[in-house]
Amino acid sequence: MEIYLDNSATTRCYKEVADLVYKLMLEDYGNPSSMHQKGVDAEKYLRKAQEQIAGVMRVKPKEIYFTSGGTESNNWALFGTASAKKRAGKRIITTAIEHSAIAEPAGRLEAMGYDVVRLPVDGEGYVSMDALAESLTPDTILVTVMMVNNEIGTVEPVAEIGKMVHEKCPKAYFHVDAIQSFGKFRIYPKRMNIDMLSVSSHKIHGPKGSGFLYLDERCRIDPIIYGGGQQNGMRSGTDNVPGAAGTGLASEMIYRNLDENVERMYRLKAHLADGLKQLGQVTVHGPADVRKGAPNILNASFIGVRSEVLLHTLEDRGIYVSAGSACSSHHRAPSATLTAVHATAAEIESSVRFSFSELTTEEEVDTALAVLNEVIPKLRKFVRS
Amino acid sequence: MEIYLDNSATTRCYKEVADLVYKLMLEDYGNPSSMHQKGVDAEKYLRKAQEQIAGVMRVKPKEIYFTSGGTESNNWALFGTASAKKRAGKRIITTAIEHSAIAEPAGRLEAMGYDVVRLPVDGEGYVSMDALAESLTPDTILVTVMMVNNEIGTVEPVAEIGKMVHEKCPKAYFHVDAIQSFGKFRIYPKRMNIDMLSVSSHKIHGPKGSGFLYLDERCRIDPIIYGGGQQNGMRSGTDNVPGAAGTGLASEMIYRNLDENVERMYRLKAHLADGLKQLGQVTVHGPADVRKGAPNILNASFIGVRSEVLLHTLEDRGIYVSAGSACSSHHRAPSATLTAVHATAAEIESSVRFSFSELTTEEEVDTALAVLNEVIPKLRKFVRS
Repeated sequence: MEIYLDNSATTRCYKEVADLVYKLMLEDYGNPSSMHQKGVDAEKYLRKAQEQIAGVMRVKPKEIYFTSGGTESNNWALFGTASAKKRAGKRIITTAIEHSAIAEPAGRLEAMGYDVVRLPVDGEGYVSMDALAESLTPDTILVTVMMVNNEIGTVEPVAEIGKMVHEKCPKAYFHVDAIQSFGKFRIYPKRMNIDMLSVSSHKIHGPKGSGFLYLDERCRIDPIIYGGGQQNGMRSGTDNVPGAAGTGLASEMIYRNLDENVERMYRLKAHLADGLKQLGQVTVHGPADVRKGAPNILNASFIGVRSEVLLHTLEDRGIYVSAGSACSSHHRAPSATLTAVHATAAEIESSVRFSFSELTTEEEVDTALAVLNEVIPKLRKFVRS
Repeated sequence: MEIYLDNSATTRCYKEVADLVYKLMLEDYGNPSSMHQKGVDAEKYLRKAQEQIAGVMRVKPKEIYFTSGGTESNNWALFGTASAKKRAGKRIITTAIEHSAIAEPAGRLEAMGYDVVRLPVDGEGYVSMDALAESLTPDTILVTVMMVNNEIGTVEPVAEIGKMVHEKCPKAYFHVDAIQSFGKFRIYPKRMNIDMLSVSSHKIHGPKGSGFLYLDERCRIDPIIYGGGQQNGMRSGTDNVPGAAGTGLASEMIYRNLDENVERMYRLKAHLADGLKQLGQVTVHGPADVRKGAPNILNASFIGVRSEVLLHTLEDRGIYVSAGSACSSHHRAPSATLTAVHATAAEIESSVRFSFSELTTEEEVDTALAVLNEVIPKLRKFVRS
């Protein structure tokens, strides 16, 4: 038995996507930069992938640039904007709960002399709009806010944030890290005042090593990788045709039955949250109303049981969850998100994230609850004795 | 019939590699950053790939860092060194015939205030050792030279260059763009005085969107992509496990029968060169001795026939070649390499590159020669009339 409840760390590829990637490695393996037919054929897959992605976001295909993943997209948005706009100003506004793929490049820019402002959040993880309003000075060049927090699932009001950014700082760009929200929410950048948006393919059942940056055609940022001039000179390197095509197909597929899948995930999440409450001494992080957070993320602290101990206990039963976010396993520091929402030390050290995908079933959640009911009392007893 | 003679642009994946990538998309799809067993299993594939690559180069596995491809590896070596060593000096030495994945970041560094020296080459494409000796000043922080030129196949004396760099500038790093040489020559960085080395997977029958940078453990460069701290903090972003594993397997496979494959490619190259000479008014670029250049690259000018015209004529017969290098299709400027070796305008505009892989057969070369014998006189007649 294997119950994979760590879909915010990574997902299994759709079989249709894996089949397409396979075909492009062995059959249509041309280099889109080649002038002959094999190059032209490969180029068509890139164009189709751009159209598939642009279709679900209602943007132009040429506004989609393929990258090696969400982290590169985020780095590019930050470094590319900072470099292109360095004469316009030095202020970059972000939040206290960003993923390290935003927090680390922001820290690097700060070390380079940029003025980085980190907006606080409230107890449910919502960014302070008052703090944003105060921070938006004329020398602000970039505001970057995640749409869904990867640890606790809070959904930031990005459309409202974008509106305020564009009203108060018409020359600043608004970037959204949509790595945990793409494929869970409908995202329309033009309507939501989003200038740039980062997506990772492996979070939506696409291939690893692939993602994209949406870049509004009116925005000018510098590349961070230079070379053969691929992708309109904005991202050089032989195009990863299998990765891009797989990303395009996964994007289209995940939006096919979105409403239905999201509704099912919300029901599973509510079911899991109810079950956890019965256990006692459990804190659920993020928005109090389960339906207000992301449909697929539930972060709970089992007071008295260390995250890693619970993670390994569940793993022995074939249940995979995350202690904090997966990417945090390289950092031994306490979660910045949980700290920012004022979780207690006891909550932080006992926090576990359950994350679903459209493939998660009610039976799997029931089994996880049954196992938790069995092991949590034992683990607590063990700690106390 | 399809005769693919454009293997320096990209290669077909080995079936074994494609099968492994496929398996890792659907079965062992974990995130190596995850602390549970699915993460641990994924991590094992990364470690194995590092061992496979380190094995063929006789370096340590931890000296192999996975990237999104050769272009990223090159950009990282240049920008990462420039950033880490900016207090030590500003001089970067490169050559006049580098691929754009070196030439473009070097140009960018020049615009940022670095002192970039481009060494001239002789008529066969060999870098001037005298010019190198003169350029090596105490403020030199980096020397970067390609091992095999992607357009004409000249093999630079990298071991000799590395020796001079380390003797005259012990603190400078020596980087080698090995994108066209890895899998064609045995490369031992420790013996060849190479500190950093870039490789692209899709040039060796591995997956696109994947490559690596060899970085000597004694060298310190800055990352260019920041985030979750993967790969020892040097290259963040969820590890592309299928890409890395495919790169490891392709690296091992291409070195299995290297001598035999290289010998066959040299024979094919000599056979093609002999055949072309019979056509008349054909100039072969690169080293006069066919055995001195790369075994798989032959660049020839068919005076009086424009490259693109010949490329499309051959394509109509199912024969795929390159006009200049594939990456050059984004640049309409004349080839920097052919200009540097003093090719005439007539030669540059009629230059075509044939590039083999271990899969290329004698029958394919014979067919290509027969077609050339048929079409070249007609195309020349057409141009003259």
